[in-house]
Amino acid sequence: MTDRRSFWAWGMESREPTKARREAAAKAMSERFSVSLAVASPPSLSEIGLRAPRISAPDSLAAIVTTDPYERAFHAYGHSFRDRVRKFAGDFPNPPDVVAYPRDEADIVALLDWCGGAGYAAIPFGGGSSVVGGVEPPEGHDGIVTIDMTRMDRVLEVDDISRAARVQAGALGPVLESQLRPHGFTMRHFPQSFEFSTVGGWIVTRSGGHYATNHTHIDEFIESVRMVTPAGLWESFRLPGSGAGPSPDRLALGSEGILGIVTEAWMRIQGRPGFRASTAVSFSSLQAASDAARGIAQAKLWPANLRVLDPGEGEAMAGLDGRTAILIIGFESADVPQDAFIKEAVSIARDAGGQVDDDEIVISPAPSDAKTSSDPAGRQGAVGAWRQAFIDLPYDWNDIAGLGVIADTFETSITWDRWPEFDRSVRAATQDAMDRVCGGGTVTARFTHVYPDGPAPYYSFTALGKPGSELTQWAEIKKAASDAVIAGGGTITHHHAVGREHRPWYDKQRPDPFAAALRAAKKAVDPAGILNPGVLIDP
Amino acid sequence: MTDRRSFWAWGMESREPTKARREAAAKAMSERFSVSLAVASPPSLSEIGLRAPRISAPDSLAAIVTTDPYERAFHAYGHSFRDRVRKFAGDFPNPPDVVAYPRDEADIVALLDWCGGAGYAAIPFGGGSSVVGGVEPPEGHDGIVTIDMTRMDRVLEVDDISRAARVQAGALGPVLESQLRPHGFTMRHFPQSFEFSTVGGWIVTRSGGHYATNHTHIDEFIESVRMVTPAGLWESFRLPGSGAGPSPDRLALGSEGILGIVTEAWMRIQGRPGFRASTAVSFSSLQAASDAARGIAQAKLWPANLRVLDPGEGEAMAGLDGRTAILIIGFESADVPQDAFIKEAVSIARDAGGQVDDDEIVISPAPSDAKTSSDPAGRQGAVGAWRQAFIDLPYDWNDIAGLGVIADTFETSITWDRWPEFDRSVRAATQDAMDRVCGGGTVTARFTHVYPDGPAPYYSFTALGKPGSELTQWAEIKKAASDAVIAGGGTITHHHAVGREHRPWYDKQRPDPFAAALRAAKKAVDPAGILNPGVLIDP
Repeated sequence: MTDRRSFWAWGMESREPTKARREAAAKAMSERFSVSLAVASPPSLSEIGLRAPRISAPDSLAAIVTTDPYERAFHAYGHSFRDRVRKFAGDFPNPPDVVAYPRDEADIVALLDWCGGAGYAAIPFGGGSSVVGGVEPPEGHDGIVTIDMTRMDRVLEVDDISRAARVQAGALGPVLESQLRPHGFTMRHFPQSFEFSTVGGWIVTRSGGHYATNHTHIDEFIESVRMVTPAGLWESFRLPGSGAGPSPDRLALGSEGILGIVTEAWMRIQGRPGFRASTAVSFSSLQAASDAARGIAQAKLWPANLRVLDPGEGEAMAGLDGRTAILIIGFESADVPQDAFIKEAVSIARDAGGQVDDDEIVISPAPSDAKTSSDPAGRQGAVGAWRQAFIDLPYDWNDIAGLGVIADTFETSITWDRWPEFDRSVRAATQDAMDRVCGGGTVTARFTHVYPDGPAPYYSFTALGKPGSELTQWAEIKKAASDAVIAGGGTITHHHAVGREHRPWYDKQRPDPFAAALRAAKKAVDPAGILNPGVLIDP
Repeated sequence: MTDRRSFWAWGMESREPTKARREAAAKAMSERFSVSLAVASPPSLSEIGLRAPRISAPDSLAAIVTTDPYERAFHAYGHSFRDRVRKFAGDFPNPPDVVAYPRDEADIVALLDWCGGAGYAAIPFGGGSSVVGGVEPPEGHDGIVTIDMTRMDRVLEVDDISRAARVQAGALGPVLESQLRPHGFTMRHFPQSFEFSTVGGWIVTRSGGHYATNHTHIDEFIESVRMVTPAGLWESFRLPGSGAGPSPDRLALGSEGILGIVTEAWMRIQGRPGFRASTAVSFSSLQAASDAARGIAQAKLWPANLRVLDPGEGEAMAGLDGRTAILIIGFESADVPQDAFIKEAVSIARDAGGQVDDDEIVISPAPSDAKTSSDPAGRQGAVGAWRQAFIDLPYDWNDIAGLGVIADTFETSITWDRWPEFDRSVRAATQDAMDRVCGGGTVTARFTHVYPDGPAPYYSFTALGKPGSELTQWAEIKKAASDAVIAGGGTITHHHAVGREHRPWYDKQRPDPFAAALRAAKKAVDPAGILNPGVLIDP
């Protein structure tokens, strides 16, 4: 049987956690929390009892729609903590009635026409990796059609002179990269969800990826966007830059499927980096590491990697001693050696109190005067340990499903002047909530991206909840953390998007006249209000 | 008597061209075109016969409004070619009825309430440097109130940790810089209009400035925008980055006064560059220089200056031989020496066929092993000549006013793959039109900004028109050039904005559903449709 996505776990069915893995995870968590946790059984498709489809597609759409229970279950959720708990519990009360796999724009137009005429909600779906309820069907609709874009996954053109490609929106990360590779190019956009997120999903959620500095969001790699709206085709000129009115692309970026369905985009691509330089610098405190990151960002050296791990993250994700903060610095280029750049960066880090030996700075290809290294720069030691832990994390969460462990993350950005106090207040609010609700827990932080004017901190928290009560416990912790983020002046999301779960805080953050403008804009291009209703704004 | 802005010429009254300058310019143009051009007399305020104000402000606004003829004449136009011709001819049929100088946001709210209630058009006005009719009152309105923002010109806060400042929108370039300088900072946003354009004007026109690569538009220096709309205050969180829905700031950016009046912004500022490196590299063709610029941009070396001059521009603006294209390369940093960067850039330029001697690469402070130079890098030789010509150009245009000379510029951007053919077609269309309409003329080009995926070419054209017929002649040339830009896939404007003059081509470039969305957004925040009517969209 061919492999397919698990309807409940991160990844493919072939990588669903074995019983042995789940038992090992239960043992580890039992030790961590000094309790005895029983392993629960994963859900089975045959037992979840999906509501029968309430609608049926016209014959003209027969070739592209399905009501198969697996398809409906798989498309019922994304991968937020709420989703993970509900999926593992077999709780699927509101699946889409129909799942469609358009092959081209004409199919999308036909689907939107059908939904618009009948008043059904149309939910665009890329890789389904949303952690904010962005692909979850809304309550209170008579019919729900989820439109899965992954059949439209081709790289249509590669312009090697301009280093750009015209890409269909349904390409998953690896599908995209495999098509760029023969041309000698790469997108180098590697969100943690890379395996199971699409170009279109990146665009409509303003995804943040590989690059820690300079151009970080997918926004900055877009030359033009092509989007099917109920009011017609929205396609911008393909341009390296423009000043002609407010950017049409920037209204599509982050629109989370409420304005239209992105079908393709011209995107900037990268030469495959042949020159690399990287290292990990140790600091006695998070603040010292932060100061170093600030100095490097403000010097505009633009490293591809500039990630700060607090002592807790350094221990959990890079195997350090729990007292040391770490700054991972990585430069890369397809065109020019990076020795000079990393030397400047390390000099700034050392001035901020960082410790690193010269022979821990790995440069490839190795300069003629350097010791040889068999590891490519960026794959060794603490850097490599962190990288692997980053990729594995969603799979680790599969293993602990059903144990009652509340493990989640949230991310934001803040200017440097407010950073230390912001960090204290956000940690305190999160810790207090975990103490109150769960009798304890841990919270750690890293920087995923660093701007000259501030970091994008990413918090992870873990506590032991009570199976069956995790969602209400989680909601209380999430609320405390999010309230603190907004009170401190941070954004409710730097790159995880808004969806349904961040709405209460997004509504506080967003200027009221902008909300009115966005609502009116949606009404203009989606007069029937069918596209992803309830995401970003209410009708 | 205190100096003030000339109501017809670029700059202050004290710099209006003397008779001697105008005679010299007439002589030079007569020689250039082999004709005998008579010097015309500049307009005088007393002779232009302004329409009497049709409306009067309520007493509550008396402290901030004026109907002084000088104020009404000065605010009747920007600085487009059309404006220059009409001003010099004393042709002022549609001046604002009232000019207001708000002191604070409460004044702006009161002004918009008044205009909204009475149905008067409200025209936001910064430095009045628009070259696209962006501040010109619309036809067919019963009352016009121009709102001049230059009294709100303070730097309110400087955050030296994050390198950002909260700035009022009415600060002209030099007013802004003089307030940042004591803090050791600079905005380093130097459009050609720097002396007479404001922060708010930069924001709503997506101004392009000093930096030729990487972050070039003012867009990328914005942390948050505060804008008064008829529907209330539009203020975003101050953030280094965000992914929370479509960016509210990016809808304000480029809105050209149709959504609200920007009152202040948090903006990224720069350390004053102490490290510089610059040079000018010669090429035998524009294409070779373009290839070098592409290589440097794609290597992501991010020079502050990377300007290509075609042989015609090199001759006119940098005193070269008319057969040589030139690539000006400049690096600067407040934090790190730039030697290594310029060496990489020069290496790429030489690989593309560029000629430059090592001792023409000027680095400051000079490395210990270099020859000393008394000139700061970036101010010497061809680089310095170009810089001065760039600053002087609008003043040069004062001198030739009234001679019938049609001298204008237009700018765009295009991806590299289309560049050489695009350049040929745009030049041919412009030249053909000048030949047809004026019996000849010249067109030259430079790159003002360079992206990894394409250049922003800036064209200058000069022809001899017939006094009294210049506007129709110019319109024909402008139409031919703009048609070619759009037909070739370029943007109608990279950083000059849309205003009224670029509307026909902007309307072709802009996706229809986006136009519908923008119209609806405007209606939501400006229900009476009073703000800069006719700019960007029709009601």
